[in-house]
Amino acid sequence: MINYKHIAFIGLGLIASSIALAIKRTGQPLRVTGTSRSKSTRLKAKKMGLCEVFETSGEAVEGADLIVLCVPVGVMGEMVDQISPYLKCGSTVTDVGSVKESVIFQVLPKLPSGVFFLPGHPLAGTEHSGPESGIESLFDNRWCILTPLPETPGDKIDQLRNFWEALGANVEEMTPTHHDLVLAVTSHAPHLIAFTMVGVADDFSKVSKSEVINYSAAGFRDFTRIASSDPTMWRDVFLNNKEASLEILGRFTEELFALQSAIRRGDGQQLYDYFSRTRAIRRKIIHAGQDTDQANFGRKT
Amino acid sequence: MINYKHIAFIGLGLIASSIALAIKRTGQPLRVTGTSRSKSTRLKAKKMGLCEVFETSGEAVEGADLIVLCVPVGVMGEMVDQISPYLKCGSTVTDVGSVKESVIFQVLPKLPSGVFFLPGHPLAGTEHSGPESGIESLFDNRWCILTPLPETPGDKIDQLRNFWEALGANVEEMTPTHHDLVLAVTSHAPHLIAFTMVGVADDFSKVSKSEVINYSAAGFRDFTRIASSDPTMWRDVFLNNKEASLEILGRFTEELFALQSAIRRGDGQQLYDYFSRTRAIRRKIIHAGQDTDQANFGRKT
Repeated sequence: MINYKHIAFIGLGLIASSIALAIKRTGQPLRVTGTSRSKSTRLKAKKMGLCEVFETSGEAVEGADLIVLCVPVGVMGEMVDQISPYLKCGSTVTDVGSVKESVIFQVLPKLPSGVFFLPGHPLAGTEHSGPESGIESLFDNRWCILTPLPETPGDKIDQLRNFWEALGANVEEMTPTHHDLVLAVTSHAPHLIAFTMVGVADDFSKVSKSEVINYSAAGFRDFTRIASSDPTMWRDVFLNNKEASLEILGRFTEELFALQSAIRRGDGQQLYDYFSRTRAIRRKIIHAGQDTDQANFGRKT
Repeated sequence: MINYKHIAFIGLGLIASSIALAIKRTGQPLRVTGTSRSKSTRLKAKKMGLCEVFETSGEAVEGADLIVLCVPVGVMGEMVDQISPYLKCGSTVTDVGSVKESVIFQVLPKLPSGVFFLPGHPLAGTEHSGPESGIESLFDNRWCILTPLPETPGDKIDQLRNFWEALGANVEEMTPTHHDLVLAVTSHAPHLIAFTMVGVADDFSKVSKSEVINYSAAGFRDFTRIASSDPTMWRDVFLNNKEASLEILGRFTEELFALQSAIRRGDGQQLYDYFSRTRAIRRKIIHAGQDTDQANFGRKT
């Protein structure tokens, strides 16, 4: 059950679109407004009937009791500068950014008093972008992490928690610092690694591009899915979660060197032991309902 | 159209099982025999009616005109030692190993004269193992690479090419050395990287295992699929494709260091440019029919 009457989006990409569709699915008669800097995005959203689309962010947020910032983490502060004069006293501002400490640092000083900032991050998405890529079931059984500030009243947290649960998500709370570390492991480092591997394959002159493409089914194509995510979003993630990303990447290269050395030395036992351990994690992810056990994710082609 | 009358499998795992099912799908009345070192695998294959199952490899290959070695690349030579006295003159021995130079090195000296060795590698598979994981459509529109030796007669190559095409695959020929380099890029390096990233996440004590599992949908879970492939198979791949794997991994770490440095320096332009380039490859893979454009591979959960 959603306890907001008017929800406003700043940014109308994949996540905002999926939230808007999931709100419709609840059948609750809420007012939903939104805006995007891009004219073509605004037109697409309007055509889809996603929400009331406004040209300016001020108009979009006026009167809203929940404002959801759905823009890359590098421009959160700038967006809040724009909307701040139009925010209703008692309203909640939340976001969907993949980094939390830096967003709090950008947003908090710019909000007027009487407006609550409650950072959030739904762990869901696809490699596609734009309002046309929204999926109403995107958040079903996925996790949304809230990182409330110590001063946030409990009822405001409950209200946002209920919102995400109404969209199908499970909600968990943690500190912003811990969030950024968890995501560095489960998302940021894997993305950088995938981007890198795809870049290396693209650059490697001894193997032609058409060979890389035709023979990608042997493993590589899964990397290309991750490495086709939105470049602006990911640039901002790394610039805003430097420390944790670099910590995980440091550990990754240490382990990779150890395995490279095992290959060079011909130490089959070390390789076998390492490769055996990782199967167990997969089973637990499937058991936790976070992925499918179907071969190749059940994809047809 | 398959131009063999009797096909024998050494090893009855995912690939042999998928070939057997794809042979059945053709409707051609061929004799298909096979064996596995593991009693439980033999029983499973028998129960499935996959082929005539024998206890010894000698019995399995007797009279066959195509023998398909479907065992990890580390034991190919040993298997050929066992079957060599039972091979029919004029028959073709092929394999499905992910490495070609080392397999040729192991197999060729052990074959009796009058038997042709024609190395092959279907670029298809899933993260699952065993005969029960076989899929009759596994090779449809996937590539099978043949690496014929200079002395192999053209009609023997055509015969094997027709075989793979009858199972649904596209066939390409290249040298064993080039094959091993192509696969190091499209398969071996990505697998080692995925194994490593999953191992790092499993080891990282600041983030709990249940957090890694619950929050895996943000990217990590795709790595765990790759990292749940058969450990014995992958150990043997790296031990038998050392040079090419280490070359690609060396380039990978160079590029990764450059991107890590861009993150540290806050060079957003370098990151953005790199991340933009990799989207194009994904589009080409989808255009080539080697993956689906559906978000998240179209998986439901």
